[in-house]
Amino acid sequence: MTDDAAILIINDSETDSDLYYATRFHVGGPIPYVQLNGKSYLLVNDLEYGRAGSEARVGEVISTTHYEEKLRSKDEPVSLVGVVDLFLQEHGCRRLQVPASLAFGYAEGLRKAGYELEIKPDPFIPERTVKTTEEIRYIETMQEHAEEAMGLAVELLKQSKVHDGQLWINGSPLTSEHVRVEMQKLLLERGCEASLIIVAGGDQAADPHQRGFGPLPASQTIIIDVFPRSLENHYWGDMTRTFVRGHATAEAKKLFDDVLVAQERALSLIRDGVNGQDVHNAVVESFQKSGNENGEKNGKKVGFIHTTGHGVGLDIHELPRLGRQPSPLEAGHVVTVEPGLYYPGVGSVRLEDLVVVTEDGCRNLNRFPKELEI
Amino acid sequence: MTDDAAILIINDSETDSDLYYATRFHVGGPIPYVQLNGKSYLLVNDLEYGRAGSEARVGEVISTTHYEEKLRSKDEPVSLVGVVDLFLQEHGCRRLQVPASLAFGYAEGLRKAGYELEIKPDPFIPERTVKTTEEIRYIETMQEHAEEAMGLAVELLKQSKVHDGQLWINGSPLTSEHVRVEMQKLLLERGCEASLIIVAGGDQAADPHQRGFGPLPASQTIIIDVFPRSLENHYWGDMTRTFVRGHATAEAKKLFDDVLVAQERALSLIRDGVNGQDVHNAVVESFQKSGNENGEKNGKKVGFIHTTGHGVGLDIHELPRLGRQPSPLEAGHVVTVEPGLYYPGVGSVRLEDLVVVTEDGCRNLNRFPKELEI
Repeated sequence: MTDDAAILIINDSETDSDLYYATRFHVGGPIPYVQLNGKSYLLVNDLEYGRAGSEARVGEVISTTHYEEKLRSKDEPVSLVGVVDLFLQEHGCRRLQVPASLAFGYAEGLRKAGYELEIKPDPFIPERTVKTTEEIRYIETMQEHAEEAMGLAVELLKQSKVHDGQLWINGSPLTSEHVRVEMQKLLLERGCEASLIIVAGGDQAADPHQRGFGPLPASQTIIIDVFPRSLENHYWGDMTRTFVRGHATAEAKKLFDDVLVAQERALSLIRDGVNGQDVHNAVVESFQKSGNENGEKNGKKVGFIHTTGHGVGLDIHELPRLGRQPSPLEAGHVVTVEPGLYYPGVGSVRLEDLVVVTEDGCRNLNRFPKELEI
Repeated sequence: MTDDAAILIINDSETDSDLYYATRFHVGGPIPYVQLNGKSYLLVNDLEYGRAGSEARVGEVISTTHYEEKLRSKDEPVSLVGVVDLFLQEHGCRRLQVPASLAFGYAEGLRKAGYELEIKPDPFIPERTVKTTEEIRYIETMQEHAEEAMGLAVELLKQSKVHDGQLWINGSPLTSEHVRVEMQKLLLERGCEASLIIVAGGDQAADPHQRGFGPLPASQTIIIDVFPRSLENHYWGDMTRTFVRGHATAEAKKLFDDVLVAQERALSLIRDGVNGQDVHNAVVESFQKSGNENGEKNGKKVGFIHTTGHGVGLDIHELPRLGRQPSPLEAGHVVTVEPGLYYPGVGSVRLEDLVVVTEDGCRNLNRFPKELEI
């Protein structure tokens, strides 16, 4: 019998990075993970049992078969909640700490079975934000692959010919799709996937969530944002560059320079103990100084319309944040630094590096040049 | 004021196919979707507002800005639950039907705000299981791409040389990884991704969730299971074949024939009105007749260790099921038919076709030959 609350996750580890972090076991369907009296348990069915035994980094892998048979013998429905209930009964545990993301259906089932549930606020596993040497190496490798893919994109842009205001390659228009697929193919060969690479030219790039489609424009800004994920260890990389093929306008050049200055300002501030909110505010201030006002155009927000950065690890967006809320930085955090300016009709520029926060500054994982015209 | 319960989803549509189905709007972060008095609403922030307005197939796209400002002016925390609460107050709605997958954190927040929550059981959107002509066309296209990728895999296996019990190509071992990446690259060029293709040889294939790694064996069974997803419309395909490069043993040949007979039996039974459970039971019976017993070997289940099939659509595994529970089939359902036998040391065979259930039978979306030795 115990008075301590158990920690419970029921999810798949493809979408739940806390579960993957806690177990290092990759599974597509929902499985229960329990942490109780200092020991961790993974409850898996027979199909997963062998693989979990050899792969999962937990105290004990438990087969659900025995519990399922018990439920069947009592003519009760065979469910994950039923299995978890029987397991927890054996350990005399009635109080649970769960993530806010726990499916409501499981929560209701557990409450009906008499459990007291408490939401453990995010970060659910606080140590996840501070990366180990191994994790930094994984992320650094992703970033190297991202830079290689970016290099390939630049090659394609450079090989293209300018004609009729757009880019052409081997007699066909050079499209966002073409550049994206070539980058994705290279990344697959490096063992990672990047299904949502942004290659957005002209006014498409003014919407930061627009992936980009169709022929790429000449003499206008093209934003390329690549975030590959390792298919093996599941860590992400993330970087962005902005290019103009041909001659950039004076306005676009100024936007580029202003973003570069803002990014350098942010990079100069980041270190252990600094608040991410202050870094973001410094970027906002930098853009105000350089005369880049926020506003609205045709019902669309323009200017610096997102935040400065976010943590990267097993999730592409995780804590800490460089944004509007307080978020203290610690040595070992890995964060993007990605100021951007978006003015439809004029140009859109984003520059994004990934850095490791250190005691006295930050280590930039990017080496890729920042040059607008190519 | 209304007495009707509103339907509420708060999720991202990358992982929540009900939300994508209801809106046809692809978004990576959580957004609220409300269905109320016969009208549907999507509540999005400014970053998504423009794209949602042109892409989302809903009654009305609502900007969350106004509600966020209201919360700020009342010094209340700006949260999705707070925004949803203000929106629902305007419509006088206090009762909500939510999916079992709703995050517990949102559910608790809504309850504290006074809402009565009821879980609407799966299928949350029942009409999702019966596919429209357009949806069948999407899935059929995925299946064509899957067959093309399977053809490429067969070409690689055929080009390989047998030496020292394994396969070689251009002087190097032909590996699972190599075959997988070549298939993935082809699929990317067709606008789809397939991050988890299984290419598993020898005893690796005895674990249906093992993706496969390392050099592929000669004269042993190799299972290739490819399930691509369209990056554009997000529908899946799914197919499996089993091959032996070189000469198969008599035991492996018998396994292959027995799986083929079981699959043909299943295919002959499927039609509108039939229960998926009966189709599965017929496969179990077919394997019993052909002398393929289930059992255990070194703590691992062997024989026919999974179910016969599952629905495919916006999720790779969705209703209906051809399994151990009742699950009635209807015309317009799209289901896999994938019996398999797994005996480590002897061989593992799975054959998987995707079929559309019709009034008087089923239409097989696969044409790819079923031949063991290549």
